[in-house]
Amino acid sequence: MNAQSAASPAATLLVCVTCKSEQGPLGAGLFAALADRLAGEMDIALRPIECLSVCKRPCTVALAAPGKWTYVVGDLTREAHVEDIVIAARRYAASPGGIVPWRERPISFRKGVVSRTPPLALTDASLS
Amino acid sequence: MNAQSAASPAATLLVCVTCKSEQGPLGAGLFAALADRLAGEMDIALRPIECLSVCKRPCTVALAAPGKWTYVVGDLTREAHVEDIVIAARRYAASPGGIVPWRERPISFRKGVVSRTPPLALTDASLS
Repeated sequence: MNAQSAASPAATLLVCVTCKSEQGPLGAGLFAALADRLAGEMDIALRPIECLSVCKRPCTVALAAPGKWTYVVGDLTREAHVEDIVIAARRYAASPGGIVPWRERPISFRKGVVSRTPPLALTDASLS
Repeated sequence: MNAQSAASPAATLLVCVTCKSEQGPLGAGLFAALADRLAGEMDIALRPIECLSVCKRPCTVALAAPGKWTYVVGDLTREAHVEDIVIAARRYAASPGGIVPWRERPISFRKGVVSRTPPLALTDASLS
């Protein structure tokens, strides 16, 4: 795990708290479980978000940090994937650019990728 | 349209140039058409990206800017959607936070949304 100060977390984990299925709300419960699990992990900033616009693949989370690629990942549940999300967030936090090697990603994070977007600084640098 | 300097474009339009269908490459052609269409528009920085990880919905683009929400949009083609993309990029550039009112979005940008992610500064502010 990367040793950074709390003021500059190596990963922000965004959890869509409005994600739901036909049976009822899902995202808020996943967020609560992750808040318990990540308490005290200063490297990972957990944040609730109202809608990541991936409504067909609940629950959805995103990993982001300054200077890193942002990953949006869906098809995650409180029942099955809390540990996967914690592992993925730690590896993302430890990665310099946000791209975790494929084999180091939990299976759910390989199958569930919705999108990735580069840090803007990278796209500007590609011009020069 | 927002009047900003070329050094700080109000929108970065990322185009996946590796998007393809079973019939062949698609993204590079869309990028070339947009480069022609956006030449001289200093508010919109056009950037090629190798894979936004939305491979099932070619072509995919993203709109991003410092301090704004990032939108990833798929199901776009060179044949049908160049004008829609230009209009969406201009409206995104003119918006203060990246959220263009629903009715002002081209139909393809309403139907094609893959994901949206907030600016990190916003998520940090939500803590205080």
